[in-house]
Amino acid sequence: MTEPIERPGGRTSRVRHAVLRAAGDALAESGFPALDLAEVARRAGVGKTTVYRRWGNVPALVADLLAEMAEESVARTETGTLLGDLEANALLVQQTLTDPRQGRLFRAVIAAASCDERTAAALQRFYDMRIAEWVPCVEAALRRGEVPEGTDPTTVIMAVSAPLYYRLLTRTEPPTRADALTAARSAVAAATAGAFVPL
Amino acid sequence: MTEPIERPGGRTSRVRHAVLRAAGDALAESGFPALDLAEVARRAGVGKTTVYRRWGNVPALVADLLAEMAEESVARTETGTLLGDLEANALLVQQTLTDPRQGRLFRAVIAAASCDERTAAALQRFYDMRIAEWVPCVEAALRRGEVPEGTDPTTVIMAVSAPLYYRLLTRTEPPTRADALTAARSAVAAATAGAFVPL
Repeated sequence: MTEPIERPGGRTSRVRHAVLRAAGDALAESGFPALDLAEVARRAGVGKTTVYRRWGNVPALVADLLAEMAEESVARTETGTLLGDLEANALLVQQTLTDPRQGRLFRAVIAAASCDERTAAALQRFYDMRIAEWVPCVEAALRRGEVPEGTDPTTVIMAVSAPLYYRLLTRTEPPTRADALTAARSAVAAATAGAFVPL
Repeated sequence: MTEPIERPGGRTSRVRHAVLRAAGDALAESGFPALDLAEVARRAGVGKTTVYRRWGNVPALVADLLAEMAEESVARTETGTLLGDLEANALLVQQTLTDPRQGRLFRAVIAAASCDERTAAALQRFYDMRIAEWVPCVEAALRRGEVPEGTDPTTVIMAVSAPLYYRLLTRTEPPTRADALTAARSAVAAATAGAFVPL
């Protein structure tokens, strides 16, 4: 038997959390190229052997960090209208990307994904989980008749995040609260007009 | 007199073009962390001293590459309707990001901007120039009454690119032609509904 028995709050889960916290701090501070398992172990106060045995390499560690980030992410908000729900989604994304640690962490992981396929796959799994969390808001809008039949819920949710990430990655200033509200309003307007019904 | 006299097609401009071409090739192949002035000089068939004297360091070289990319970018298309213009814009962006060399080059430069401020500033100048090239299409739509008064042309143009870059950077597959057409349609629908009039 090589798999540890994991209990919530047990030693294994405390070690995982400490190591992933240290990995996230190191990524936010110095980026992916500088990430080093021995240094992460030192920061986390955990034996080097434990870290090498459990994660083995940097992409596996970053993939597990993204898995934990998805597990611990905030649940969707249901306000009763598509605009209210997507505003909540946009403000959550904008606040995350504006937080100094989180903003740098996302930039570092996205940069890493551009040169490492395992990180790219893990990043896509992270966004798949976040999109799936918010898709029911569009499904509810479809049932309420707020958006036309055939509207693709995934495209609607991606349309809210897209302008915020685009600003984060191509501008020197992170997205503002006004950018978030514009992203939500424009996604609702486009969805209402049927722009997210696949051609 | 230390500034070379630059003539189109002259030696100075040929050297610049060869060095920037080699820099772009190296970035697309191996990314920003591996970029090295001596290696770029070797690839370009240009003396190392010339490259060090003219550009001095990697961020300055990447900034000049982005300046040349902006100078040589395709001019806007004017079709007579906002939808036609933004479809042309979306397809141009999507084709650029799907091209193997260009797609990798953009990912490398965006990754570099996340850890180098001079590259971030140069990248923003590149997008400012590209946005400015396409803004007149929205201004024409405003004059034709296709979109409500007060619509911010810059936000409309950014709304077309955003979902295509978001897909490039967070998904393992680049944006498709269908994604480009959806990006244009949704930007027009949102603009028509007044979603890009600042609150």
